[in-house]
Amino acid sequence: MTENVERLCIQRITREGRRDTEDIVTQELPLTIILNNQELVTLLCSPTDLMHLAIGFLSSEGLLGSKDEIKKIVVDDQRGVVRVETEDDKETASGLIFKRVITSGCGRGASFYSTADVGGLVKVESQIRVSVLEVLALVKEFQHRSEAYRMTGGVHSAALCDNKSILVFNEDIGRHNAIDKIFGQCMLQGISTDNHLMITSGRISSEMLLKVARRNIPTLVSKSAPTDLAVRLASDLGVTLVGFVRGGRMNVYTYGWRIAIDGKQRSQTS
Amino acid sequence: MTENVERLCIQRITREGRRDTEDIVTQELPLTIILNNQELVTLLCSPTDLMHLAIGFLSSEGLLGSKDEIKKIVVDDQRGVVRVETEDDKETASGLIFKRVITSGCGRGASFYSTADVGGLVKVESQIRVSVLEVLALVKEFQHRSEAYRMTGGVHSAALCDNKSILVFNEDIGRHNAIDKIFGQCMLQGISTDNHLMITSGRISSEMLLKVARRNIPTLVSKSAPTDLAVRLASDLGVTLVGFVRGGRMNVYTYGWRIAIDGKQRSQTS
Repeated sequence: MTENVERLCIQRITREGRRDTEDIVTQELPLTIILNNQELVTLLCSPTDLMHLAIGFLSSEGLLGSKDEIKKIVVDDQRGVVRVETEDDKETASGLIFKRVITSGCGRGASFYSTADVGGLVKVESQIRVSVLEVLALVKEFQHRSEAYRMTGGVHSAALCDNKSILVFNEDIGRHNAIDKIFGQCMLQGISTDNHLMITSGRISSEMLLKVARRNIPTLVSKSAPTDLAVRLASDLGVTLVGFVRGGRMNVYTYGWRIAIDGKQRSQTS
Repeated sequence: MTENVERLCIQRITREGRRDTEDIVTQELPLTIILNNQELVTLLCSPTDLMHLAIGFLSSEGLLGSKDEIKKIVVDDQRGVVRVETEDDKETASGLIFKRVITSGCGRGASFYSTADVGGLVKVESQIRVSVLEVLALVKEFQHRSEAYRMTGGVHSAALCDNKSILVFNEDIGRHNAIDKIFGQCMLQGISTDNHLMITSGRISSEMLLKVARRNIPTLVSKSAPTDLAVRLASDLGVTLVGFVRGGRMNVYTYGWRIAIDGKQRSQTS
């Protein structure tokens, strides 16, 4: 059992009547991130890997460029606070917080990005390919890893992978948080995201796509559906977007050449 | 077919190879809400019922108390902008935006509420009950209504119900947006939420619970899982929280007395 669940007494009711029983629910913590003594944001998240989440969030929001900028990180698990001090005390909060985008997704939600940021993103040029059988094997491993989801039905998972295996895995009640935890760990441990795949259990909306493109990740894979805006951004930003990976098949929305047909397979259209 | 979907050319890849085909994806629109000439927020949402969404959002955030306060609403569907002018030009943005909570859920995300707001909420005292068979029938109707979800797998649904039928139904890529669209419609059309049920397709985290409690809704029903914080808030705020309504059964986390056992049923514990 993972640690971020709680046992509760509940009633289970059926057409036949009610009985008292026990249920396991996933935990939710309000985590406040304080950057250079300024309270930046409160995220609602699963109470694990708070340091990775805070660093990943700051990085995704463009408030932290590299590990070298970090002077100090203090994590208070009990109160749900992470304090981060950086070398360069950027003029962040006042200007950025006003221009916020509240995102749709099954995940954290708000994001500081503006249209200008989107325009400034560089197209992902990676020539890396991954085979269909590799994608299917990775997704199978990914599904086995998400124990908490199977217990409570309450969390999302994300994983950074190379073609052969999962390198970094995390989960959270917010699908954005799960990805930011991975990015935070990558930054702190010096793990490159270039030429890798990201797998997520959640639906793919525009801000998920932007988050991944910003890390130069060429391929984003989900068991679920994308939105039309996510597909357009994937097309603009050079990301291979794969959805509905289920039962040995998948939908490839953009840059299908990165998904290689294996030896015995052949293309029916080319 | 609902209007908020788009057809795309994609590749479907299986172990046997790839072929070009067509897929339907749900649309996503960045909607900017301008309150009294001040740009408040940009929501990522499904491009339907933008007026209801804007009004519901403002109401959920405590920036709009009643329909009478509204002087003017201008909706620009094409540019994704809703302008709202109110009688009372509250000092909203500057103070409120800084203290933001980015929420976890499969939905919009950010919320302006503070701990003080939570403390100020009044406990829901409604004595209304609903029977097990009524809940099961409502959830069955609810699932039939969500056409777009069945087509694209990409949206969440929400419904306000009395004991017998669905009164207001809506859907959105964000589960918070779906609920806010309902609240906006209720405010503009003078539909009371007292003594009613809210059904949502999404998981229930703390801010979903707060949103419903703020409207004095006594019962919140979901096919999915709640978090522990949502259960604690439901307990504190007098809300009956029902999860995992599936296959003729349900888990009741709080205030089970509001779910009445039907005539032929009996309690196995009391």
